[in-house]
Amino acid sequence: MTRIWQNGELIASKEACVSAADRGFLLGDGVFETLAIHNGKPFDLAAHLDRLAFGLAVLGFADAVDIDHLNNEALRYVAGEGAGPGVLRITVTRGPAPRGLAPPAAPSPTIIMSLSPAPPAREEPISLHIAAATRRNELSPVSRIKALSYLDNIIALREAQSLEADDALMLNTCGAIACASAANIFIIRGDRLETPPVADGALPGTMRAKLLTFAQSAGLTAIETSLFANDVAEADHVLLTNSIQGIVEAGHCDGAALALRAGGAVERLRALIAAAIEEG
Amino acid sequence: MTRIWQNGELIASKEACVSAADRGFLLGDGVFETLAIHNGKPFDLAAHLDRLAFGLAVLGFADAVDIDHLNNEALRYVAGEGAGPGVLRITVTRGPAPRGLAPPAAPSPTIIMSLSPAPPAREEPISLHIAAATRRNELSPVSRIKALSYLDNIIALREAQSLEADDALMLNTCGAIACASAANIFIIRGDRLETPPVADGALPGTMRAKLLTFAQSAGLTAIETSLFANDVAEADHVLLTNSIQGIVEAGHCDGAALALRAGGAVERLRALIAAAIEEG
Repeated sequence: MTRIWQNGELIASKEACVSAADRGFLLGDGVFETLAIHNGKPFDLAAHLDRLAFGLAVLGFADAVDIDHLNNEALRYVAGEGAGPGVLRITVTRGPAPRGLAPPAAPSPTIIMSLSPAPPAREEPISLHIAAATRRNELSPVSRIKALSYLDNIIALREAQSLEADDALMLNTCGAIACASAANIFIIRGDRLETPPVADGALPGTMRAKLLTFAQSAGLTAIETSLFANDVAEADHVLLTNSIQGIVEAGHCDGAALALRAGGAVERLRALIAAAIEEG
Repeated sequence: MTRIWQNGELIASKEACVSAADRGFLLGDGVFETLAIHNGKPFDLAAHLDRLAFGLAVLGFADAVDIDHLNNEALRYVAGEGAGPGVLRITVTRGPAPRGLAPPAAPSPTIIMSLSPAPPAREEPISLHIAAATRRNELSPVSRIKALSYLDNIIALREAQSLEADDALMLNTCGAIACASAANIFIIRGDRLETPPVADGALPGTMRAKLLTFAQSAGLTAIETSLFANDVAEADHVLLTNSIQGIVEAGHCDGAALALRAGGAVERLRALIAAAIEEG
């Protein structure tokens, strides 16, 4: 059983707790990152900490968190716990404060790091459902940061699972596809690798960024463009990406089979990710 | 110093803490209520618990919380702590769970009640700013429940305060006014008391419900209708309502003076609220 890192202290997981006055708990006032542990190290840590810092800036308390220090502590924590393949979560909240929405002038952030086992790899193509109950709000800056609140995503995922689909696709307020419940979406169409722009409500995922970078080496042209349900239905291949699972293929959407015609390109992308992981 | 009620135990406020694996903390997976304490009792408790139960149903774990028991415990807690005028907050989360978005099949909710002093009453009309940085998502069921995540509201309030306004008005994705950062909005126009419908992203506030009920006795006709910036600018009177402050008048919006022409009706509404409080 690994320990939890909390504001510089290592604590047995079962005993780790957060003040009941923490704004992260009371108001969702914070951000987080989840990173894959490969070869004993958190993969793509710099990109995750960049996004974390951006999120803190959006929320207005970036000055209260020393990102370089957090970088070093994350490396030390993961190495010290002797973590095998798994998941590192870094959570940063605005910390405890008196009741009320207005943030304290000088916040004392709560920073927590925890380790979990890697989830089982998804070898088979999964099934998707386009969630009807809720929409992702691309008009909010919260859609562009990894904020604590995942209720819309949880609602979408529950709806998908109630229909025996593996994951949900979330539409934005205009009806364009934004993302899955905890992943970005890509489609391959001919030699194009297409994904919704951040302006459509896509979280700027770290694995998404990798795929956009790797596309050319995989023989694809990366394009950020709005995607709709018919684009998914007509794609040569539909992929979900996140930092933990890498690339997951989708085989069905709302009962209809999706094409899996670009397996070669998918394998080339996977190989590029594997090489990046090997390089550390 | 009052104590905190946590899943049936009374704990010194400073020691009260929540598992770092609580989904309320990690994912904003929960709901809350804030109630005014008047005459030693939480005011309008039944309405708040109704909304809480509705929120739990939306999130899919209403079965895991005994609302009647919570009602009794809330009364007992407030009486036992000998609370003066103040605020009771009831927080209910889906509780601790392993990592991942998918909720556990049999959640163990975390229920916390805490007491805070009453905020200073707002005697003078306040100033408003229409927030530009974010929009309230009326297309999400989360807009209709009092969910833990208040990040959009915090962002809107910070924007308002940075411009030296007291509170923010939040627009929905269509540009209609939904609410303030922690209050519903009403305008009085002639003999009409108008407020945005819940479908526009207005939280179904308990004080909002009271005003809709009291309108007739105050000589007004209550109407739920979409409101836009020009409706606020041209209103005879602009009011914010919530369970803690009751009715607060707005005197300015984005620098322009608002009319305060319906003071008689406002006083009649306030008297009806005061009478309801007196009745308990």
